[in-house]
Amino acid sequence: MYYLGIDIGGTGLKAGLVDEAGTIIARKSVPVDAKHPDFDHYLAEELASLTKQLLFENDLSVNDIPYVGIGVPGPCDDKNGLFLFAPNLPVRNMELRRLFQEQLDIPVRLGNDANCAALGEYRVGAGKQYSSMVLITLGTGVGTGIILDGKMWTGCNGVGAEGGHMVVRPGGLECGCGRKGCFEVYASASGLIRMAVEQMRNDKDSLLWSLADGAEENVTGRIVFRAAEEKDPTAEKVLDEYIDVLSEGCLDIINLLQPEVVVLGGGISGASDALLLEPLRERTYGRDMAKYSLPKTTIVKAELGNDAGIIGAAFLGA
Amino acid sequence: MYYLGIDIGGTGLKAGLVDEAGTIIARKSVPVDAKHPDFDHYLAEELASLTKQLLFENDLSVNDIPYVGIGVPGPCDDKNGLFLFAPNLPVRNMELRRLFQEQLDIPVRLGNDANCAALGEYRVGAGKQYSSMVLITLGTGVGTGIILDGKMWTGCNGVGAEGGHMVVRPGGLECGCGRKGCFEVYASASGLIRMAVEQMRNDKDSLLWSLADGAEENVTGRIVFRAAEEKDPTAEKVLDEYIDVLSEGCLDIINLLQPEVVVLGGGISGASDALLLEPLRERTYGRDMAKYSLPKTTIVKAELGNDAGIIGAAFLGA
Repeated sequence: MYYLGIDIGGTGLKAGLVDEAGTIIARKSVPVDAKHPDFDHYLAEELASLTKQLLFENDLSVNDIPYVGIGVPGPCDDKNGLFLFAPNLPVRNMELRRLFQEQLDIPVRLGNDANCAALGEYRVGAGKQYSSMVLITLGTGVGTGIILDGKMWTGCNGVGAEGGHMVVRPGGLECGCGRKGCFEVYASASGLIRMAVEQMRNDKDSLLWSLADGAEENVTGRIVFRAAEEKDPTAEKVLDEYIDVLSEGCLDIINLLQPEVVVLGGGISGASDALLLEPLRERTYGRDMAKYSLPKTTIVKAELGNDAGIIGAAFLGA
Repeated sequence: MYYLGIDIGGTGLKAGLVDEAGTIIARKSVPVDAKHPDFDHYLAEELASLTKQLLFENDLSVNDIPYVGIGVPGPCDDKNGLFLFAPNLPVRNMELRRLFQEQLDIPVRLGNDANCAALGEYRVGAGKQYSSMVLITLGTGVGTGIILDGKMWTGCNGVGAEGGHMVVRPGGLECGCGRKGCFEVYASASGLIRMAVEQMRNDKDSLLWSLADGAEENVTGRIVFRAAEEKDPTAEKVLDEYIDVLSEGCLDIINLLQPEVVVLGGGISGASDALLLEPLRERTYGRDMAKYSLPKTTIVKAELGNDAGIIGAAFLGA
């Protein structure tokens, strides 16, 4: 038995054939043209064609997989087969399941990409030894995915687990969602970069300037962590603030849900433990409501990198 | 078949015999002596004695109920039968199940009081037509209880669903939990009263003064709502701020969990719809992440009042 998962991103479609142990045994990807005039049909055809090719190249047929799992970059409605909306693609209430099945007659399961990543980490990554988990993906935005008692929780409408849109700085910077001061605005890689650029402007001697070749637009999350490794005071100050807001967001989620584990994913989670995981644990452990209880929530790093989304999509119905 | 639930409060023990439809058909309560020198044994004996009396007075025996359900005012560990801690009672890692069973040999189920209230509202109150629900109890503190897919979620350690301890005002007033600016500090009745007293000091003509007989310590939540009904500008301003923080807390919870319904309980929820529920809905609906999805979370008022805790405790194992 194999599973097939596809991760729809803002720039490309990544498909993987996954075995029962959760290993991706074959992959295929194609770019996506977000400006296609008939985007709905185009996307469904691309997804179906990718599926057919991946199966064909591996001497498999549609009968060898139980369904196609698709992770979409926005809210979706798996029950009715709808891809509802995406900030980076021209999608509104798209009947993705029906359109896909017009191309290829096989069951289709849909999941939000952050929720798929959580399912992937839960099944075969950092969450596999636990029964409840929250994944916090620190990337361009902040995505979260919730697994409780082994099941993905996505809310009554499939839009749930948007922990990136809890407010951590009331009256703070505007978020794309319409609220102000969302967790995502501060704890995302974009948030870290923004905070670093703001601080650099006050310190022309910061190592951040030379690492960024003198240009603000070259600052990346990686550069901030590298400068902090070199003990650059500006980078250290920025990271201190960043860990602070990340810790508060983690505590909010832990107090509400008390999952066994919080898993940090996304580009930022590639930072060294000394600069990210250790200070985060130090500021979070012992401050939640489980002071007198066991077990206590553990915070760890994700293990599957960008593959989590494909693997989770593949396991959407398994 | 009958169920028996007991709600342990800071000042008294309230027991109820509940039928399968969730109606309390008999009640009995006793005060609790928080200063008893051997509190653990004393509490267990009082609970068992209350159980025996309630059964006896209704011509029932222990064989007529499947278990005794106990709601405790603090974190507990139902798996191991422990009442872990309470802010208002001298309890630390109390072996409540074992001690109770020394008095009366019957299964014992434990639940946190806010979670019991949620279970009660879910089974027979405001949540009964839904499959996922978050109860927010606006009382002396702010308690929350989470029901997902018909099951109470209390975290890996039973301490979960402490939504009152999500931070809504970073760097704000200290909370008993050790964090600063918790939802509870602002959205509780105590928070509302504190905000009202602060504003009264700036406005000696406020109706709040006469309703409180000229003394700050007489201000209650009810007085604030009454003054707002009379269009007292100070009370209106306080309520405006209060609804604002309540709305932001609701949005945080909705964005994370997207429950079908958020139920408002506790003393504050007795306020008129025009002053509480309607403005809260107005400021909350349409601002969460489910802009493009159905169904959307509904906000309603609790229906069971103080009985929710007894009924929920009674249903802990059913």
